[in-house]
Amino acid sequence: MKRIAIDMDEVISHFSVGCLELFNKEFNEKYTIKDLQGKLLVELDARFADRVDYYLANESFFLDLQVIKDSQEVIQKLSARYDIYIVTAAMEFPTSLAPKYQWLKRHFSFLNDKNFVFCGDKSIIHADYLIDDTPSNLDRFTGQGILFTAPHNRNVTGYTRLNNWQEVADYFLKI
Amino acid sequence: MKRIAIDMDEVISHFSVGCLELFNKEFNEKYTIKDLQGKLLVELDARFADRVDYYLANESFFLDLQVIKDSQEVIQKLSARYDIYIVTAAMEFPTSLAPKYQWLKRHFSFLNDKNFVFCGDKSIIHADYLIDDTPSNLDRFTGQGILFTAPHNRNVTGYTRLNNWQEVADYFLKI
Repeated sequence: MKRIAIDMDEVISHFSVGCLELFNKEFNEKYTIKDLQGKLLVELDARFADRVDYYLANESFFLDLQVIKDSQEVIQKLSARYDIYIVTAAMEFPTSLAPKYQWLKRHFSFLNDKNFVFCGDKSIIHADYLIDDTPSNLDRFTGQGILFTAPHNRNVTGYTRLNNWQEVADYFLKI
Repeated sequence: MKRIAIDMDEVISHFSVGCLELFNKEFNEKYTIKDLQGKLLVELDARFADRVDYYLANESFFLDLQVIKDSQEVIQKLSARYDIYIVTAAMEFPTSLAPKYQWLKRHFSFLNDKNFVFCGDKSIIHADYLIDDTPSNLDRFTGQGILFTAPHNRNVTGYTRLNNWQEVADYFLKI
């Protein structure tokens, strides 16, 4: 069975939406995901620079993130034909370790937790495919990288890009 | 630079010693690491079957483990010639995630935490070498496996075996 490694933040979990919600509440703003197209949070509003680390330090941040549309159904289908690993750069925010594990058990309970990988540098991952929203992760990966569209990477070129989970299903179920 | 992946429990941290200490205290026994040669904990005393999960569920268990002799000095030396990754099967005991991270930052502060990997199945690891005390982890690894001697694997044959961290230094610094 071929192996697909799948990132968490912005691929199966709505990381930026979580940040926007907390920021809107704190500063009485009304930013939506549409305002973020082609931008990092800090490019949308410079005040994010001081706030993101603070939001992420709260364990409930990662626990409460919304699931990205269709990711559960498509990953469950892909599981029949591929070995699925969830691979997330959790070491940047060590407080995220336990809540990320709980979030996966809650929303992707059909996956074996032996297939969860919490790492930093994704060049350590031995898999056939990596679906990730961060181009630098794909650059260091030795298999086939797939850029999953997220607001911040809209204008990035040079990668095989899939825009949503229906496109992921079409790509992998037709190989 | 070639890459060495290094396991935690029984390779850099005294996992079995931690279990023995708690068991001796609870049951007023005097088991030492010498009693464990060639045996699993449960083969030494059947009562371990009911106790190990209980000991490991306490976050302080992993935080308080002793460092295996010479591992810090040798890994620091190896860091000059190899990319070092610490790769541990933390998903079996999710409560170990945060304390394992803290233990590594405390005892191996010279390593970059981007090089810590908390996983389940080690076949996901892309490295040239894996130093591990568990034969089944080496069987599924695609690079060169090195069996690090631990009490439970004394009688296992068929692997490149290194008995202590001085032997690891000799092996890798002479390649």
